[in-house]
Amino acid sequence: MSEHFADRMASAVRRSGSRVCVGLDPALEGVARALGAAPDVSDPEAVAEAIWRFNERILEAVQPYCAVVKPQSAFYEVWGAPGIEALGRTIRRAREMALLCILDAKRNDIASTADAYAQAYLADGPLAADALTVNPYLGSDGIRPFVEHARSRGRGIFALLRTSNPSSNEIQNVRLSDGALLYEHVGDLVAAWGADSLGACGYSDVGAVVGATFPAELAALRERLRQTWFLIPGYGRQGGTAADVAGGFDEEGLGAIVNSSSGIIFAGAKEPEKNFAEAAGNAAREMRDALETALEARQRRCRHWPGAAWYRSTS
Amino acid sequence: MSEHFADRMASAVRRSGSRVCVGLDPALEGVARALGAAPDVSDPEAVAEAIWRFNERILEAVQPYCAVVKPQSAFYEVWGAPGIEALGRTIRRAREMALLCILDAKRNDIASTADAYAQAYLADGPLAADALTVNPYLGSDGIRPFVEHARSRGRGIFALLRTSNPSSNEIQNVRLSDGALLYEHVGDLVAAWGADSLGACGYSDVGAVVGATFPAELAALRERLRQTWFLIPGYGRQGGTAADVAGGFDEEGLGAIVNSSSGIIFAGAKEPEKNFAEAAGNAAREMRDALETALEARQRRCRHWPGAAWYRSTS
Repeated sequence: MSEHFADRMASAVRRSGSRVCVGLDPALEGVARALGAAPDVSDPEAVAEAIWRFNERILEAVQPYCAVVKPQSAFYEVWGAPGIEALGRTIRRAREMALLCILDAKRNDIASTADAYAQAYLADGPLAADALTVNPYLGSDGIRPFVEHARSRGRGIFALLRTSNPSSNEIQNVRLSDGALLYEHVGDLVAAWGADSLGACGYSDVGAVVGATFPAELAALRERLRQTWFLIPGYGRQGGTAADVAGGFDEEGLGAIVNSSSGIIFAGAKEPEKNFAEAAGNAAREMRDALETALEARQRRCRHWPGAAWYRSTS
Repeated sequence: MSEHFADRMASAVRRSGSRVCVGLDPALEGVARALGAAPDVSDPEAVAEAIWRFNERILEAVQPYCAVVKPQSAFYEVWGAPGIEALGRTIRRAREMALLCILDAKRNDIASTADAYAQAYLADGPLAADALTVNPYLGSDGIRPFVEHARSRGRGIFALLRTSNPSSNEIQNVRLSDGALLYEHVGDLVAAWGADSLGACGYSDVGAVVGATFPAELAALRERLRQTWFLIPGYGRQGGTAADVAGGFDEEGLGAIVNSSSGIIFAGAKEPEKNFAEAAGNAAREMRDALETALEARQRRCRHWPGAAWYRSTS
């Protein structure tokens, strides 16, 4: 029996002492600047090779300061088959380095199609990750095949819930006839999808994507969905701060990981004279520390925080 | 200036005399049965080659009876990089045969990530299709990059609206505080996303996916969204009939295409002694004829149907 995904997440946070997820979104311009040479865009093999060389060095640099990495599938798919090879190499290398790997592909479909996606990304092939982001718009039919594949292997999914972009309001925040907002309703579905399988840490293997850019909603969702891991995008360049995301964590400092992509991997763009990988490592370390400081500040405000003892023992 | 996507859809329907979309969902079991030999699943190159050989013959057989084909990305992605190569060959062959090709990948993301997906599937690379299915849960930010890439090249998108699966009710049919259902609200967004760009036929380049399995809702959406092409899944094995989908068409018999996947491409499974491609061609022809008959029946019921003259001239 595989270890439960939620417990693997908790272990990764405890082992690394970090709540940082590094987003591996290798946009070509940034990769070319970092490597000091632009690959020929008419040669996808060359671009994919450059992306792989970039990722390899980034992974090495950020590994001490993060618990999780999150390749963004689009930046690999755009280079076709060679890009997919680079994605597979990146996923496998991250996992060899004992980093959990969430593939951010926002897949969604039903029946045998959902099953095929789950086979691709949550089973045993060359693109298998520890977790996959999914879009919940199709309802339970569009989630169940992913959960089944993930659960049997100690893996997980993260369903989009309240995304970090400004126009997420247009659908996610419509008011329902019962007074709830749509994302709250979807959150209750997410909780139900995960309720059958809780790890020892109390969390399920069905997580949710909740943006850093709406801190009050993030904190309210933390209260509402006590068993749901949050993957929090929107930190850094999208505007979310460490104080903004603190409310996404539980009393023990668990239950969330915070993603930053270009703010870490392209941190070197501001200091072109320095080594890009070193700059990325520094940025990951600074983000780790900023999150720790924000959690400590919250802890001081909550004297009777039940998880304080555990929290002190691990930070 | 490229021809407008909606006009390309209308031309494809008129030229072919068919409102059929053939779903290219090459599930391995069906492909192996059709070819009479199971490729070694541990060899993705061999599987991808088998899928390509299968698709090539299916395309040739169904081409006279359909306007559009729709490869389902998951069934290619599951074989990794070689699967992506087979997908690209399939898209390119379909387009060489003057079939419109909708890539069913239900992509969704924002900003530079959405842009990368659009670059992959709606620009000029080896995986470029005529249209892409997308998931609207992220709101306008998650749609705009796709529309921009598509529009500048006479291509389109189809946003998920009311999907054919039973549990689509859980989110898509929640009642909003203003009395509408969520999918009606999303439908109004879809209409707005397309309103800036209408073809000569009166339709926009932002279509919607509306399942065959909810005929009353389909007909009501046809009235509500007069400028939106519908891609209608759920015909055949999922239970939708020709009579069920008739309400998805406008008075001129335009505005919708109806997809069938395994009901066409694996039609030969019922008659293993026959040629699988011939069986697929026959199934596509029968579906084309069933749709024509259902549209004629509706025409007879609506004496004053304004498009009757056009309709007679093309059927």
